[in-house]
Amino acid sequence: MASTSNDSLPISIHNINPKVLECEYAVRGEIVALAQRLEKELLTNPGSHAFDEILYCNIGNPHSLGQQPITFFREVLALCEHPSLLERNEINGLFSEDAIKRASQILKQIPGKATGAYSHSQGIKELRDAIAEGIKARDDFPADPNDIFLTNGASPAVHMVMQLLISTEKDGILCPIPQYPLYSASIALHGGTLVPYYLDEASGWGLEISELKKQLESAKSKGISVRALVVINPGNPTGQVLTKENQKQIVKFCKQEGLILLADEVYQANIYVPDKKFHSFKKISRSMGYGEKDISLVSFQSVSKGYYGECGKRGGYMEITGFSADVREQIYKVASVNLCSNISGQILASLVMNPPKVGDHIYESYCAERDGILSSLARRAKTLEAAFNSLENVTCNKAEGAMYLFPCIKLPEKAIKAAEAADTTPDTFYCRQLLNATGVVVVPGSGFGQVAGTWHFRCTILPPENKIPDVVSRLTDFHKAFMNEYRD
Amino acid sequence: MASTSNDSLPISIHNINPKVLECEYAVRGEIVALAQRLEKELLTNPGSHAFDEILYCNIGNPHSLGQQPITFFREVLALCEHPSLLERNEINGLFSEDAIKRASQILKQIPGKATGAYSHSQGIKELRDAIAEGIKARDDFPADPNDIFLTNGASPAVHMVMQLLISTEKDGILCPIPQYPLYSASIALHGGTLVPYYLDEASGWGLEISELKKQLESAKSKGISVRALVVINPGNPTGQVLTKENQKQIVKFCKQEGLILLADEVYQANIYVPDKKFHSFKKISRSMGYGEKDISLVSFQSVSKGYYGECGKRGGYMEITGFSADVREQIYKVASVNLCSNISGQILASLVMNPPKVGDHIYESYCAERDGILSSLARRAKTLEAAFNSLENVTCNKAEGAMYLFPCIKLPEKAIKAAEAADTTPDTFYCRQLLNATGVVVVPGSGFGQVAGTWHFRCTILPPENKIPDVVSRLTDFHKAFMNEYRD
Repeated sequence: MASTSNDSLPISIHNINPKVLECEYAVRGEIVALAQRLEKELLTNPGSHAFDEILYCNIGNPHSLGQQPITFFREVLALCEHPSLLERNEINGLFSEDAIKRASQILKQIPGKATGAYSHSQGIKELRDAIAEGIKARDDFPADPNDIFLTNGASPAVHMVMQLLISTEKDGILCPIPQYPLYSASIALHGGTLVPYYLDEASGWGLEISELKKQLESAKSKGISVRALVVINPGNPTGQVLTKENQKQIVKFCKQEGLILLADEVYQANIYVPDKKFHSFKKISRSMGYGEKDISLVSFQSVSKGYYGECGKRGGYMEITGFSADVREQIYKVASVNLCSNISGQILASLVMNPPKVGDHIYESYCAERDGILSSLARRAKTLEAAFNSLENVTCNKAEGAMYLFPCIKLPEKAIKAAEAADTTPDTFYCRQLLNATGVVVVPGSGFGQVAGTWHFRCTILPPENKIPDVVSRLTDFHKAFMNEYRD
Repeated sequence: MASTSNDSLPISIHNINPKVLECEYAVRGEIVALAQRLEKELLTNPGSHAFDEILYCNIGNPHSLGQQPITFFREVLALCEHPSLLERNEINGLFSEDAIKRASQILKQIPGKATGAYSHSQGIKELRDAIAEGIKARDDFPADPNDIFLTNGASPAVHMVMQLLISTEKDGILCPIPQYPLYSASIALHGGTLVPYYLDEASGWGLEISELKKQLESAKSKGISVRALVVINPGNPTGQVLTKENQKQIVKFCKQEGLILLADEVYQANIYVPDKKFHSFKKISRSMGYGEKDISLVSFQSVSKGYYGECGKRGGYMEITGFSADVREQIYKVASVNLCSNISGQILASLVMNPPKVGDHIYESYCAERDGILSSLARRAKTLEAAFNSLENVTCNKAEGAMYLFPCIKLPEKAIKAAEAADTTPDTFYCRQLLNATGVVVVPGSGFGQVAGTWHFRCTILPPENKIPDVVSRLTDFHKAFMNEYRD
């Protein structure tokens, strides 16, 4: 039971860490709190709103919207949760042969099959071996299991790196705008400075080196020591997939400027267009001849995204290369303070990076599940993109990858004034009205950052395919009504 | 592959966050690194040492030493990992009726049975309901599910609170000495000041209010604003269980001095003596008539300890009471940046706080497993305590609870000189020699803090019961030889 403000308590909003106050995280912010309230009202008082359910398009949480887990992954996890199942004959009818084989393999690598024990603070060595193999198969360049730190999803890995790099507000991190607000939140919590670089909406959220240079110089002139460059590829919230050529320019830029490249590659399995492919920044660097001694690179990966979408498992890793032994020892020490990441998440990360292969009995059914999800996501992305582009004053770049669209809305002056009167930003005003009218939850662009005077929102492509027409018609009807009300 | 120090890389030990450098975590420190090296040598070159296996007594990691998980918990977890199992008849022979029932109940509370989705950032509401019920059953005072924040083990919860309370090095946290080094590590990482208070070894690691007062005043006189008092009960590394009377004094002290009480209660299920019982600080506060408006209290709990010992699951929670709504909103915001803790850990936390009850079919076998583990731990604690007390120059308080003994060794001058020559502390010197001679891994007292000039080590009571005689004889033989070598 929360007491209301009470001066006799030793803690109040006035004496907590101001960095905590500064941190913002829009993906679960104000609009989502409103959605949860409306959802409760619908439950206790059906018919109280113009819609009968809330459609969450605010967050990349596929299973919450009906996406099914990959059967093989869950079979292996269940067997690893309760290893004594493997001694029972009855499991042969219940679990696939491949899952039984994989679970047995994994458990054999864990002394005493003790999935309930703390592991090495970087994660179980043999699971890191499997991940390193998966990275090698993906990149055609070797990976070292000692470079891998398994974490509870990618977010804690990002925090660890920020904690390492940021000592004072003079330490800057170059981040794309728009960006996934984990970065702004983590930089704020660690007391650093976010140095923005703007993606070019007109060229499909292009990442231009001239812009990086300009912002780097501007930060330096303010006395900021810029430590690292964050690149999110495929983009969040912007959905673009970088070209190889562009990635090479970025690597060269980091090398020249002495920046650590922080590559958010959690959407590596989410690509929806035939002319684009995912290339890891490590592969690009190595293909340019840059090795351990040339460039410092961190790649973040997660089990929460891709076709697997296992957000609740909190599995992920970072692969760090080009870090000296003494710095890595410091990272290991910080990891060890939290002992280790959860073992199920570790196992799942190894499965995701080392899924069934040609020749496995389960291979075909695994591929069918994977491709079913990915092709459906591609269709949903296309439908929503077309819908947005058909609206008055709205333009929307293609979602080449990731799980989001980030349409731009030219809001009429009258709407901007109305937002001002309601003491909020115009994009928040729009999103709030949309939610209240339709039950569709999207996140205002201001939570991600946008060029001043432009307005956007982020909409996931995750509602079940059979609900997409409903999302489109709710959005379209709302937008027409909104424009009719506020058109200048 | 770690490169060695390389000036061309943008990151080096000289330009990382100095707070990271300051942080120490002895439980996985130097001695453990040596143990891992010796273990590898034994594998590649059997017979290369005077012992044939490493006996890890450094860390509270029961399953790594053969402790078996509670069957019911694992059955429920396996079913929740792969919900479609519940549609198959074959499970009736494989899983207990109660586990099937509990898993079905839990899955019914998760929309779409989606254990792969992010949950509410405090954890799934219905699991928090179950935990609140468990707290109520334990304390006889109500608990509110909205006060509970589920976390990946207790450690991230401690970090969250430190992050909230510490803005500068002028923010102090009163911590016991000896203490579990998570606290010193977290305070260092957040840039605060650890204000030590010494437990009284002579009175069984007694916690005296006069000592708290003295240290509080001394910190204040240095300009430190002391925000909170950490109490670990049952004690880590010290194993004592506080009396009710002592707990009341502590609560009163916090109330009077305006301190937040941070109660580390992760060993609440580990009590080994008939004359002591665990009482939560919330129960004590409420029984004194102190409510929401009187005292700010955080209780930490974990699935890693107790008779369950599920370290690898990374489940835990904090219950926060006496925090105003606006401060709690800030805590929720920070939790939301990491989205949520892992769902298996959340489920396990609900099981641990709400285990099988009288009337359940499985109740007897569950109790047999639980009591078997706890009574064996009690026997092991007693045997090791007696063994330590039989050694020359060693005294050891009783382990009334938790998982550790913290014997005091009066080291001869000659040993102290030898340590100095080896450029290490005397207790580290002793522990290193012990490890090299016997393969027994314990943690030097300096990792936990100790009165200046006294020397200790922490030894867990976790080696399998049939190996305890071996631990005792290795320790005894080593200690005799050590004393013969260094006796003044």
